[in-house]
Amino acid sequence: MENFRNESDLLGTLQVPKNAYYGVQTQRAIENFKISGQYLSSYPHFIKALAMVKKAAAKTNYELGLLEENLYKKIAETCDEIMEGQLHDQFPIDMIQGGAGTSVNMNANEVIANRVLEKLGKEKGDYQFCSPNDHVNLSQSTNDAYPTAIKMALIQMNDELVEKLKKTIAAFRAKGQEFSKVIKMGRTQLQDAVPMTLGQEFEAFAATLEEDISKLNSNANLFVEINMGATAIGTGINAPVGYANLCAKNLSQITGYPIISAPNLVEATPDTGSYVIYSSAMKRLAVKLSKICNDLRLLSSGPRAGFFEINLPPMQPGSSIMPGKVNPVIPEVVNQVCFKVIGNDLTVTFAAEAGQLQLNVMEPVLSHSIMESINFLGNAMDTLREKCITGITANKEVCLNMVKHSIGIVTALNPYIGYKNSTEIAKEALETGKSVYNLVLEKGILSQEKLDEILDPENMLKPHQF
Amino acid sequence: MENFRNESDLLGTLQVPKNAYYGVQTQRAIENFKISGQYLSSYPHFIKALAMVKKAAAKTNYELGLLEENLYKKIAETCDEIMEGQLHDQFPIDMIQGGAGTSVNMNANEVIANRVLEKLGKEKGDYQFCSPNDHVNLSQSTNDAYPTAIKMALIQMNDELVEKLKKTIAAFRAKGQEFSKVIKMGRTQLQDAVPMTLGQEFEAFAATLEEDISKLNSNANLFVEINMGATAIGTGINAPVGYANLCAKNLSQITGYPIISAPNLVEATPDTGSYVIYSSAMKRLAVKLSKICNDLRLLSSGPRAGFFEINLPPMQPGSSIMPGKVNPVIPEVVNQVCFKVIGNDLTVTFAAEAGQLQLNVMEPVLSHSIMESINFLGNAMDTLREKCITGITANKEVCLNMVKHSIGIVTALNPYIGYKNSTEIAKEALETGKSVYNLVLEKGILSQEKLDEILDPENMLKPHQF
Amino acid sequence: MENFRNESDLLGTLQVPKNAYYGVQTQRAIENFKISGQYLSSYPHFIKALAMVKKAAAKTNYELGLLEENLYKKIAETCDEIMEGQLHDQFPIDMIQGGAGTSVNMNANEVIANRVLEKLGKEKGDYQFCSPNDHVNLSQSTNDAYPTAIKMALIQMNDELVEKLKKTIAAFRAKGQEFSKVIKMGRTQLQDAVPMTLGQEFEAFAATLEEDISKLNSNANLFVEINMGATAIGTGINAPVGYANLCAKNLSQITGYPIISAPNLVEATPDTGSYVIYSSAMKRLAVKLSKICNDLRLLSSGPRAGFFEINLPPMQPGSSIMPGKVNPVIPEVVNQVCFKVIGNDLTVTFAAEAGQLQLNVMEPVLSHSIMESINFLGNAMDTLREKCITGITANKEVCLNMVKHSIGIVTALNPYIGYKNSTEIAKEALETGKSVYNLVLEKGILSQEKLDEILDPENMLKPHQF
Amino acid sequence: MENFRNESDLLGTLQVPKNAYYGVQTQRAIENFKISGQYLSSYPHFIKALAMVKKAAAKTNYELGLLEENLYKKIAETCDEIMEGQLHDQFPIDMIQGGAGTSVNMNANEVIANRVLEKLGKEKGDYQFCSPNDHVNLSQSTNDAYPTAIKMALIQMNDELVEKLKKTIAAFRAKGQEFSKVIKMGRTQLQDAVPMTLGQEFEAFAATLEEDISKLNSNANLFVEINMGATAIGTGINAPVGYANLCAKNLSQITGYPIISAPNLVEATPDTGSYVIYSSAMKRLAVKLSKICNDLRLLSSGPRAGFFEINLPPMQPGSSIMPGKVNPVIPEVVNQVCFKVIGNDLTVTFAAEAGQLQLNVMEPVLSHSIMESINFLGNAMDTLREKCITGITANKEVCLNMVKHSIGIVTALNPYIGYKNSTEIAKEALETGKSVYNLVLEKGILSQEKLDEILDPENMLKPHQF
Repeated sequence: MENFRNESDLLGTLQVPKNAYYGVQTQRAIENFKISGQYLSSYPHFIKALAMVKKAAAKTNYELGLLEENLYKKIAETCDEIMEGQLHDQFPIDMIQGGAGTSVNMNANEVIANRVLEKLGKEKGDYQFCSPNDHVNLSQSTNDAYPTAIKMALIQMNDELVEKLKKTIAAFRAKGQEFSKVIKMGRTQLQDAVPMTLGQEFEAFAATLEEDISKLNSNANLFVEINMGATAIGTGINAPVGYANLCAKNLSQITGYPIISAPNLVEATPDTGSYVIYSSAMKRLAVKLSKICNDLRLLSSGPRAGFFEINLPPMQPGSSIMPGKVNPVIPEVVNQVCFKVIGNDLTVTFAAEAGQLQLNVMEPVLSHSIMESINFLGNAMDTLREKCITGITANKEVCLNMVKHSIGIVTALNPYIGYKNSTEIAKEALETGKSVYNLVLEKGILSQEKLDEILDPENMLKPHQF
Repeated sequence: MENFRNESDLLGTLQVPKNAYYGVQTQRAIENFKISGQYLSSYPHFIKALAMVKKAAAKTNYELGLLEENLYKKIAETCDEIMEGQLHDQFPIDMIQGGAGTSVNMNANEVIANRVLEKLGKEKGDYQFCSPNDHVNLSQSTNDAYPTAIKMALIQMNDELVEKLKKTIAAFRAKGQEFSKVIKMGRTQLQDAVPMTLGQEFEAFAATLEEDISKLNSNANLFVEINMGATAIGTGINAPVGYANLCAKNLSQITGYPIISAPNLVEATPDTGSYVIYSSAMKRLAVKLSKICNDLRLLSSGPRAGFFEINLPPMQPGSSIMPGKVNPVIPEVVNQVCFKVIGNDLTVTFAAEAGQLQLNVMEPVLSHSIMESINFLGNAMDTLREKCITGITANKEVCLNMVKHSIGIVTALNPYIGYKNSTEIAKEALETGKSVYNLVLEKGILSQEKLDEILDPENMLKPHQF
Repeated sequence: MENFRNESDLLGTLQVPKNAYYGVQTQRAIENFKISGQYLSSYPHFIKALAMVKKAAAKTNYELGLLEENLYKKIAETCDEIMEGQLHDQFPIDMIQGGAGTSVNMNANEVIANRVLEKLGKEKGDYQFCSPNDHVNLSQSTNDAYPTAIKMALIQMNDELVEKLKKTIAAFRAKGQEFSKVIKMGRTQLQDAVPMTLGQEFEAFAATLEEDISKLNSNANLFVEINMGATAIGTGINAPVGYANLCAKNLSQITGYPIISAPNLVEATPDTGSYVIYSSAMKRLAVKLSKICNDLRLLSSGPRAGFFEINLPPMQPGSSIMPGKVNPVIPEVVNQVCFKVIGNDLTVTFAAEAGQLQLNVMEPVLSHSIMESINFLGNAMDTLREKCITGITANKEVCLNMVKHSIGIVTALNPYIGYKNSTEIAKEALETGKSVYNLVLEKGILSQEKLDEILDPENMLKPHQF
Repeated sequence: MENFRNESDLLGTLQVPKNAYYGVQTQRAIENFKISGQYLSSYPHFIKALAMVKKAAAKTNYELGLLEENLYKKIAETCDEIMEGQLHDQFPIDMIQGGAGTSVNMNANEVIANRVLEKLGKEKGDYQFCSPNDHVNLSQSTNDAYPTAIKMALIQMNDELVEKLKKTIAAFRAKGQEFSKVIKMGRTQLQDAVPMTLGQEFEAFAATLEEDISKLNSNANLFVEINMGATAIGTGINAPVGYANLCAKNLSQITGYPIISAPNLVEATPDTGSYVIYSSAMKRLAVKLSKICNDLRLLSSGPRAGFFEINLPPMQPGSSIMPGKVNPVIPEVVNQVCFKVIGNDLTVTFAAEAGQLQLNVMEPVLSHSIMESINFLGNAMDTLREKCITGITANKEVCLNMVKHSIGIVTALNPYIGYKNSTEIAKEALETGKSVYNLVLEKGILSQEKLDEILDPENMLKPHQF
């Protein structure tokens, strides 16, 4: 068939599309893994990271005298092309695959080799001039090149995620400022507690998320430690002396991150600890975002039979049957993304625990789950900010009214009349429907002037000078 | 030392407390497993189930001519004593242990053997007359006796759990009846929807839990299938022909449940599928209970700044600082138990997945997690019923007021004026604060008589004759 | 712009692509939910199920005199077209979305309405002749139509999944037959136990999976209970008397499944119990498949430094650095799918628990996770069967040799010489390296003839006549 | 009844055991929460931490002029007693409880108050002289005192856990040293890979665990940030100006840790982020320990039909039926603890997500789950070290033999003859059973001298000078 070329490997000969830059091993993977319908080609950060790793390896091999200059330059050029976004359609492998990433690594090796052959004026598949294994994969194993590429991808994806997080925080903070004068009832255990401002509530959303910037970054920072030079199992078989450190240095230059070689490569090769804890950090962010979205939905409940303290911007009609209904669809979708991230974290946990002996063969699903979570979380935060947070408004009167009628303000009387007496007042207020204010006056416990000062909500928003 | 006796096994000689009915292998387990501080002795159903299994085995061995009559009778007597609650303090092993239950099985074998020796007028430890292995464990392996005992325990624990569930359902149903005339706003997505009764809401709690009776029972029913006669790996080595079925029959008589022998004992021995799905059924119940408790907390939120549709019975002062505050502590504790059950279900999932080849060695943590969940859930449901559900009262006026002021009732106009016109009315009501009723009249869209009929909440509680 | 038409809703006017069958609300959803990049259009079962539901509703409305004949027929025709696979590209909404499915329901309503308008010779968007809300959605709410469609989709997807499961079982069973004479050592706790056949091992794989057929089916069977007629919150507002049961009957005819109306529609509307337990049943299958794949990888470990009892068919070169290495890539990918299914089950658990009051707004992520798990599991089982199970071969000699040299066969001596004496023999065999057989002879414990009979592996594969 | 005294609170009067130091609110909690059977009294770190917090608060109140000197001194003395281990039996509350810890806080307040009364020569319950609320709880709320106590307990429990971890690491490292000359086959994907030493393998266990020291510590370090002074919701109502920082300073002195006041107390009060990520760090440790135990069980599989590279110290007879069998019971129990920790982490995740508005009411189950995990993990690591790691021995000959017969050593030929030629050799070795060494010689590809050098396993253990 003229649309195909023949390539062969350990298992025999196979037809590969004539124009494909990928080769026989990629072709086998296409046929072996029809699982998720989600392909490597949709993960540009990952493909670019593979090119970075291959370039760093080639440079190192060249500098150590193992790769001749012309071949090195052609390989490097090709990697640059991929890093610029070319040839990504040549990565058609399912993200969920067996083989611990060998198919992905060989996919990269084959695409680069064939593109180099093209540059050299050779036919695709004529691997004597540039071999996927002997040249592009020189001094490497899937077991070092693949996880290193995953880590390079994740570092960059984390940077983007943190940018989106920062914007989300800024949006909450701006609302905190805007609502700094809106006095409302705070609630604990869903019961009326004591007064606060809506601004304090939104500022707290900002503050709690802000802590996750450093959590994400410090855990993503574990990804700078790589195992290039480990080759098959960390003993460095077939890697030249000095390779590991030099390759890390070269990868630093290429990526702009301070990449270092793991101190113990036998340990580093099967280790998935950095994935586990980075995924956990995302889970933590998801837990917080979900809690915040739950709060936004509660605070905007109503309009007549709910809290109705805030209004979310209406994004779409809320019902196919109930006219005029507008629902908190944006927080709702964010909640769901958070549940997905938590589910993915469990997949990561299982995959990490399943590592055996000198390798963790579950890295594909592990990296897929983390990358999916980053993408979903990033999209969710952008959506939340653009389509919800920035348009939130406060129902100032509603908020103030609830404070005025509350019993919780009796708390402020403790320092003056003691917990036990305050309890009596509260009990009577609840039973009679009378206000705390009137009851105290009635009983002549405090002067009106003193009472006015104590029960002024403004005075309840911060510590007091007794 | 005169307070000890010496016993020996494969690994050598060990001191056992002189008066202990347990022997050397139990002693080793005590020393090997200092993990959870939760002991077999706190799980009476489990200990009794071990005795049931040992009695059934002895009876079968006797009937097949492998055990002489006197020894059989003494073993059976001892098992009866244990089933009546005696000797439970002789089971001091940590619930979380290695060895796939061998320690538990040997604990039972040793206690029974020594008690039989006592009955025979022999010294404890003089195993030539009654051996833990050759007599009490005759025709058995830990790998069949242990999981069979777990299953016998779980069947009975499930029965008790379902009883508690039924009482919980009855309590919700009674409230459904009591509140059948309390009209309130239904809410979807936390936004006001259309009217319903509080009775419908509570009846729905009962109805949703009711479905779990059959779910729990049908999944617990998987436990009647046992693998006695499988011995070590399901091939039945050392078990006499006919043993498996006869033992199942004898166990049926002893337990009162229709116990059957698994059709494929090699499959049945490592299989943990019944645990996985029974734990899932408990998880389902936990998810529902948690949702219900979330609703109870929402509906009782307030008293002034929340929904305040219902009152939960006050169980304790709610705050060390806020006088008069009463919190929904009972639903709160139930929520937490539900989270524990969900966590335990994950432990079960991991333990089940970790089975290898002819056995699942993780059965101890698996059974411990399920038993803990049953106990916690049972306690939580009793607590919820006694200390919360039965004392709930409705704030009828509050509920009705929210219906009267709602916009959601505009939905009932759809069939008469169309979704689009209803939308216009709703929008205007929201913006102006006017009631739907007045707006329709103002605009002369419908006659007052017709409108009164359509907007009567009573007419919105069920399908209509158009 | 002439490529667009204007449509309006509660929130105002929006441009919709001129040729699109979908309308303004779908357009809003496209813009609101840019989350997962996984669209409704990739879930044909779901789209077809929406059409089934809409057809059943239209038929019911027609039969109850609420919809005129011509409009009914045109709606039904359109639904038939969608059920045949047409117009699926008109469902461009992200699978993870807010709004509890309102966007999906309106997407279906709009596509059907515009296709009907086309049939009527009207312009798209001229909804006075056929309105998405007043005609296609007549007597319905998203809150009944959407979950009913999910359930119709899942019933059919489950049927396909079970077919794949049955084929997997058959493949294991065939191998069980093929290997019925291959004697090998059984292992418990990864330690040598007693002999069995490789056929028994593979037959057990078949047997354990077989139990999941009924588990999947019985839990999928919960999906036949629907809440059509519930409308917004289960009270049936705006649904005519008799609608619920008649609609269930009509849906039975359309789908061929015995659909019934839930006995309590207020309960049925927010209830997600059927999803939770069906997802759990898939989790159980995943746990079993993962355990089996772990076993396959263990049994094929080697070739020189592992168990090497079986050979998996080589699917691709195993390493970019280690020549000749062939890895168990197919079981590996199945393991990973299983971890994904377990992760999705957790997402389902979270989503189910998050239901509030009269609705569970998290249904989109819940249904997405279940559908993804079904698809992944189905693909994984097909892959496992076609590319692994059917090609497995046994290393008969290796298996037999391990039995011959094992100490575990000493177990068969128990009934003859007692556990304690057997222990001594075993201990000596382990320490001296001598065989059990020779040691017994040396010591003159049993005659050679008797010993030959007892230690014949064939005699250890099943219960014995003592 | 003379054995009781009467105490009263918001809900009325209740009998408290006459001699009890706890009071009415503790008594209510005893009756309200009969859930887990696991009591505060079994968590000494927690009780001591409560005393630390109460002492710090009293000191701060005294220094700010709110508490008179004598009362302060008596409270401080009492706290010291509790910190020394006294009165712990006065904390009989179930660890899983509703009320967000109010019962625990009041339990501490009541015990301290009554002990102070005793010191003052007053009757228990005569709270006018020392009130649980007005004096012991002065300037505090449960919502700041309770989580602060949890954090103080966790910091100290983490210190102990890390000590146990360090010892575990040291034990693995010692074995790494001991086995540094034992050459064996490395395995990836359970298939023979290339040579390594058993020492490298054990050193890698040490190295991977070592990374968790800093992970645990850095995340536990989040607990130094407290919210004392927040009172009810973080606004500091009823707390004097300057209280928050001074209290943190006093708590630093008492605990010896560098405690600081959270920058935003409204945020800090409901925030559970530190628990989530600390629990995740334990989960990471559990994942690693479980993987290591899986490896230990694999490497010691056999003795005749497994890898048999190492021997675990025998701890107990392995079977009630199979004489001489010894199982890896210690790694098995550690695996199970790891699954428990992972399950607890999910409980923590659910509990954290369930926080609402100004408080997370699920803190009791959250802290209970974390404390249980710390205790279990600590016990498991001690058990693993003492009863397993230190006694492991190597089967040096077995290990070396597998290397000699392996095909994987062909990898070392790549740099000399290329991947493709090496593949041919490997293929032939596999098919013919011939050794790689002989095949290369036969084919005259390399001189014997060169081959001897290349294939010397010693040369494969590290990078090479080409």
